[in-house]
Amino acid sequence: MELTEDDIQPQMNRRRPGQSSITTPRNEKDRVMIQSGTEFGVTLGTPIGLVVLNEDQRPKDYGDKTMDLYPRPSHADWTYLEKYGVKASSGGGRSSARETIGRVAAGTIAEKYLKLAYGIEITAFVQSVGSVHLFPPTPEYPTPSQNPAFLELVNTINRETVDKFLPVRCPDEEVTQKMTDYIAGFKERNDSIGGTVTCVIRNLPSGLGEPCFDKLEAELAHAMLSIPATKGFEFGSGFGGCEIPGSIHNDPFIRATDTPATDTGAARTGIPRPKLTTKTNNSGGVQGGISNGAPVYFRTAFKPPATISQAQTTATYDGESEGVLAAKGRHDPCVVPRAVPIVEAMAALVIMDALMQQMARHEARRHLPPLKQTVPPSENGVSMGGN
Amino acid sequence: MELTEDDIQPQMNRRRPGQSSITTPRNEKDRVMIQSGTEFGVTLGTPIGLVVLNEDQRPKDYGDKTMDLYPRPSHADWTYLEKYGVKASSGGGRSSARETIGRVAAGTIAEKYLKLAYGIEITAFVQSVGSVHLFPPTPEYPTPSQNPAFLELVNTINRETVDKFLPVRCPDEEVTQKMTDYIAGFKERNDSIGGTVTCVIRNLPSGLGEPCFDKLEAELAHAMLSIPATKGFEFGSGFGGCEIPGSIHNDPFIRATDTPATDTGAARTGIPRPKLTTKTNNSGGVQGGISNGAPVYFRTAFKPPATISQAQTTATYDGESEGVLAAKGRHDPCVVPRAVPIVEAMAALVIMDALMQQMARHEARRHLPPLKQTVPPSENGVSMGGN
Amino acid sequence: MELTEDDIQPQMNRRRPGQSSITTPRNEKDRVMIQSGTEFGVTLGTPIGLVVLNEDQRPKDYGDKTMDLYPRPSHADWTYLEKYGVKASSGGGRSSARETIGRVAAGTIAEKYLKLAYGIEITAFVQSVGSVHLFPPTPEYPTPSQNPAFLELVNTINRETVDKFLPVRCPDEEVTQKMTDYIAGFKERNDSIGGTVTCVIRNLPSGLGEPCFDKLEAELAHAMLSIPATKGFEFGSGFGGCEIPGSIHNDPFIRATDTPATDTGAARTGIPRPKLTTKTNNSGGVQGGISNGAPVYFRTAFKPPATISQAQTTATYDGESEGVLAAKGRHDPCVVPRAVPIVEAMAALVIMDALMQQMARHEARRHLPPLKQTVPPSENGVSMGGN
Amino acid sequence: MELTEDDIQPQMNRRRPGQSSITTPRNEKDRVMIQSGTEFGVTLGTPIGLVVLNEDQRPKDYGDKTMDLYPRPSHADWTYLEKYGVKASSGGGRSSARETIGRVAAGTIAEKYLKLAYGIEITAFVQSVGSVHLFPPTPEYPTPSQNPAFLELVNTINRETVDKFLPVRCPDEEVTQKMTDYIAGFKERNDSIGGTVTCVIRNLPSGLGEPCFDKLEAELAHAMLSIPATKGFEFGSGFGGCEIPGSIHNDPFIRATDTPATDTGAARTGIPRPKLTTKTNNSGGVQGGISNGAPVYFRTAFKPPATISQAQTTATYDGESEGVLAAKGRHDPCVVPRAVPIVEAMAALVIMDALMQQMARHEARRHLPPLKQTVPPSENGVSMGGN
Repeated sequence: MELTEDDIQPQMNRRRPGQSSITTPRNEKDRVMIQSGTEFGVTLGTPIGLVVLNEDQRPKDYGDKTMDLYPRPSHADWTYLEKYGVKASSGGGRSSARETIGRVAAGTIAEKYLKLAYGIEITAFVQSVGSVHLFPPTPEYPTPSQNPAFLELVNTINRETVDKFLPVRCPDEEVTQKMTDYIAGFKERNDSIGGTVTCVIRNLPSGLGEPCFDKLEAELAHAMLSIPATKGFEFGSGFGGCEIPGSIHNDPFIRATDTPATDTGAARTGIPRPKLTTKTNNSGGVQGGISNGAPVYFRTAFKPPATISQAQTTATYDGESEGVLAAKGRHDPCVVPRAVPIVEAMAALVIMDALMQQMARHEARRHLPPLKQTVPPSENGVSMGGN
Repeated sequence: MELTEDDIQPQMNRRRPGQSSITTPRNEKDRVMIQSGTEFGVTLGTPIGLVVLNEDQRPKDYGDKTMDLYPRPSHADWTYLEKYGVKASSGGGRSSARETIGRVAAGTIAEKYLKLAYGIEITAFVQSVGSVHLFPPTPEYPTPSQNPAFLELVNTINRETVDKFLPVRCPDEEVTQKMTDYIAGFKERNDSIGGTVTCVIRNLPSGLGEPCFDKLEAELAHAMLSIPATKGFEFGSGFGGCEIPGSIHNDPFIRATDTPATDTGAARTGIPRPKLTTKTNNSGGVQGGISNGAPVYFRTAFKPPATISQAQTTATYDGESEGVLAAKGRHDPCVVPRAVPIVEAMAALVIMDALMQQMARHEARRHLPPLKQTVPPSENGVSMGGN
Repeated sequence: MELTEDDIQPQMNRRRPGQSSITTPRNEKDRVMIQSGTEFGVTLGTPIGLVVLNEDQRPKDYGDKTMDLYPRPSHADWTYLEKYGVKASSGGGRSSARETIGRVAAGTIAEKYLKLAYGIEITAFVQSVGSVHLFPPTPEYPTPSQNPAFLELVNTINRETVDKFLPVRCPDEEVTQKMTDYIAGFKERNDSIGGTVTCVIRNLPSGLGEPCFDKLEAELAHAMLSIPATKGFEFGSGFGGCEIPGSIHNDPFIRATDTPATDTGAARTGIPRPKLTTKTNNSGGVQGGISNGAPVYFRTAFKPPATISQAQTTATYDGESEGVLAAKGRHDPCVVPRAVPIVEAMAALVIMDALMQQMARHEARRHLPPLKQTVPPSENGVSMGGN
Repeated sequence: MELTEDDIQPQMNRRRPGQSSITTPRNEKDRVMIQSGTEFGVTLGTPIGLVVLNEDQRPKDYGDKTMDLYPRPSHADWTYLEKYGVKASSGGGRSSARETIGRVAAGTIAEKYLKLAYGIEITAFVQSVGSVHLFPPTPEYPTPSQNPAFLELVNTINRETVDKFLPVRCPDEEVTQKMTDYIAGFKERNDSIGGTVTCVIRNLPSGLGEPCFDKLEAELAHAMLSIPATKGFEFGSGFGGCEIPGSIHNDPFIRATDTPATDTGAARTGIPRPKLTTKTNNSGGVQGGISNGAPVYFRTAFKPPATISQAQTTATYDGESEGVLAAKGRHDPCVVPRAVPIVEAMAALVIMDALMQQMARHEARRHLPPLKQTVPPSENGVSMGGN
């Protein structure tokens, strides 16, 4: 596959701090360099090494002495000490959100493949900040998955559109403005606030995800909850779906009319799309842990950042005394706008893994003689049933 | 470790259908037999084989012909066909909830160890059924994690108490009655409804969970979303926590006063509890992906069961025509009461794995000569920092 | 894939004890039954469960009391106790060669696929018993890999031929007779003897095996040394190849003339064979850990069985006293004839894994647009370079 | 654990080319730098990043054009092309022996731990070069494992002694001189020769290695055969052991008199050595795949290096024509002296993994209440049976 730094850098820039006045002003340039695995702009099949130098190291937010005496509240300083028995001067070590830079870099490579070969599109956007929601529950639509406006967004949203709504990345003029003001209020008060990010995966082949323990939603949940500061995950109708009767929640099957995007490998090699799709999509594109070909969508919750400039009372490492901490400088009052490319990257890595597993199975099946009474394997791709 | 069928059977019974009039009347006796791995009631260290014979096989709910023509809505019939290219006569194959019986059986063995060696207690209960919530959000307590009554429950709930609130397993007289009536209404209407199950893990050592990708909450989310019919996962303050300011959401450290239960291995071998705990517990016992010794709690969402006796319009496998399906017989209108032991079992398996990983690390560290300037390893256990 | 017990049973029979007077007379019928994973004789893609009931359980060879007091020399009784701290009454537990029955059963399924889809043929035979060798080193041919007769055998041997040389399975009239008499002598003396088994894999696609740690020969070595009673592994020129100058040992490339067998999936779907092969084959079909399309061959060493009827002096478990052990009844004086199907099965499992890994990679590559200046991917299979 | 570059560099130097006139004169300085995972000379428990800059890049041995047209005989150029479908200008990519530098660096860290905590000593030496053997088979001692001189070496050899026999690292004055002259002859003739390396692991706890598929010898074989240029592996009596009667091959148990080295963690924390050992050691310290506490020893075969300056006829990539290749410059005529630290490193990594697995099991067992009728767990270490 053709691959250069130019394929990777755009998502690095979307993740980078300092994109606007409401995010942290630290300016990490985050230039990525490919160290190995490509030659003349083409991947060699061998591992790809990437390096991003950290040009703007963070000074100790609380001053050295403070960090030595106090574990920061709701940070990982204390748990890292409990786990490893050694206190690194950087506190919670690899729990820093800086670690996500590698995830985004790796994710872009997976994304390029998924787009090129299958036309798969992965787009995340901010769905809520604090109590400001893009699709607040209403009597008519208790969850977004019931709301036609949400489903329309699921079917059409793309990154270009999302980035028109900077700095918050919530794709609605009015709501994004409301969120911007809302976050500014928290910044003003030296406080912070959380939010949720929704991610949509379109043109996914059917058949991805492994039964029982490695269902597609289980792998996605694992990936999302591994991102720092996350508190929850829901897919399809999610928590709201628990409150809808089964008679409404069930997704009836209908004949699919989709055709693959014409400029992708799927079209090039003639992979057919599944014959069926669902009329509603409370399933979020996954049934029994396996993708059904409809758009997959899920939502991830991010807590308010723990580093705030307000004074907080807490205990020393030895528990012997109490003290007051307040972070110096300005900090990110809300992480969700920058979390958008991180969510996209982790989603791409999960899908790439699931696709490789299903590809191996499909390729294995393709070389067998045809069986009577079973669905013939599709000649050219992963989606293979229903023909 | 001592182990007989009697250690395993109680949870099998709690999972079993037919426990009350509001759950499915099928009577699967679900007797477990140990096939290998123990001798004279003691585990041999070798793999433990368990068998549960299925004495009451489910007849085809929709009749043979129907199952051949139509994929059931929101079941896995269609996605299994798409994945494997072969249609089993049982439809979605291993996506049946019957599969969870093995999880519960295995989980009980992990639970016995965790209880015996560390005094770890794992208890799940029903927190909501449809729109009936045990801790509905109020202006004062926007999420349960802010509610003192919820935190009290987290600190005290146990299985004996939960089972006093049969058939629903929601530990509140009034709410459990309301839920019972509510479910009965759905049953009456041949409909179904979802709900949520909260699980609490107490006396967990600190230091469990791996940084970055295999954070404790990521593993728990993976496990929970692998249970059939789940739609979401949140831990600690969860989705509600996104709406609370950081200044309130942060958990200040305070000196811990906990002592280990006296009849456990932890007490026997003198494992100290961590020196610190947190005043509030929005972190849900996990910071930076690693347990801090405080109670871990999380909530899992279950959708309304897909099999209902109402008529539903859907498409045939080939997408050529439409038809109407209605399940025969009576079906479980709400799965959450029976999901309680399944959630507990999966939690136990995750904790057992995390504990084994940390044990290997801790044991490795215990044999090294002491280092200057670092926390000495605890002499006897997993919790090892802060002394 | 079509699959019934009839595909599995023949290899079970070849492994079974009691095939001739020189192997152990215990008659284990070893009937295999498929429990799950197929329907109407076709695999469903889900896990395949197999059961073989043990109809002829081995009585305690040394009497109960003896087994309680003494760890049998060169058995695993002592090390299992050291590992698990619990002494099972069966002694070394899962170290019994009975355990290989599951390997053979699973291997036959892999073998059927490999044969059907790629025409891959896996054949093992006995190359030496004690000091009786099929290809003893000569001044002209210091190792078999230099010997044209050996290379001819590598290119042509199959199971039907091997089984003409029962009971020893060494494909040479004279040598097999010599081995039979030689083993009979050990049986007479209540003693035992070891031997070596060579295995040949033909029609293997090129490109199998992962660089660095999971080279094809590393995986094969792992698999072979996991078989009970094995002591060594060599592939291609092996230990003897260390004694040949590089100028002779190097395998020059020449144009290949092979064509795939006409009745296989490879022919059916038009997979091309590699354009090059090697003139000699000291590489054993593997270069840099990756198959090159030439026949893969390797040899595995089996020690003399530890259970003999001669009296042996040894120590009690507590080391306090000595005693004399002698096994009752008649025991297998040489395991290599029965090891033949076990070696084949483990080889098939390794190849199946390597093929699945390469299939995923190949299928992934097939959907990308063509690149300039690189070898175009083969349209239909795993072997893909050199076109 | 304390760790600096000084712990790692010595083995890098032993692996480095250019150590004597009979090895390759390229001078790679191979300075290792720790990038992450330690602070103030102490490991943090987090991953340790190491960098070795390549200061002396190899020029194209055959000239650019030649490498473009011809796959080098018995190199991985051809198989890498077959696997990945893309030809890197460096030919066989990661199949270069340069890759082993990372293995040696990582291995030293494992070795330091094993020595410090358990007194485990890992020493490899050259046992044969071409037809020159340290312990050639004799009528009296058909295999080294029967030879008291070999067993004495197994019990006493250490790295300091081995390095007294530079450049060949065969611990015998006379044999090492013979090997030196022998290799010089191959160098003279622009040819190359192989050899074997024996490795001894002493003070290993009993109980290491997993039953069935991941036996200790299977893991060691996997590791050894993953080293470039290896052709075979044998442990204990090895291939020669196949030719000894069982009555001689069996290792009788005797009471052990070993005591742990006094300056190690094993002594510090009072880990008892096993009560039994074996009188002979044809088992190579492993029975049923599990270590028994006696010295583990095994031998690995290395082929003659493929790069020689003699002219060799071979085919072009497309198979259309033939040509003659001859490497420019001087090349390593025999790799075994430099392979010594690589074998040690890979052995250390395997043992470290096996130890971590057993530690987790042992630590788990230590917290359970005592059982009647079973061996009580050792209070302080991995070796736990037989007390």
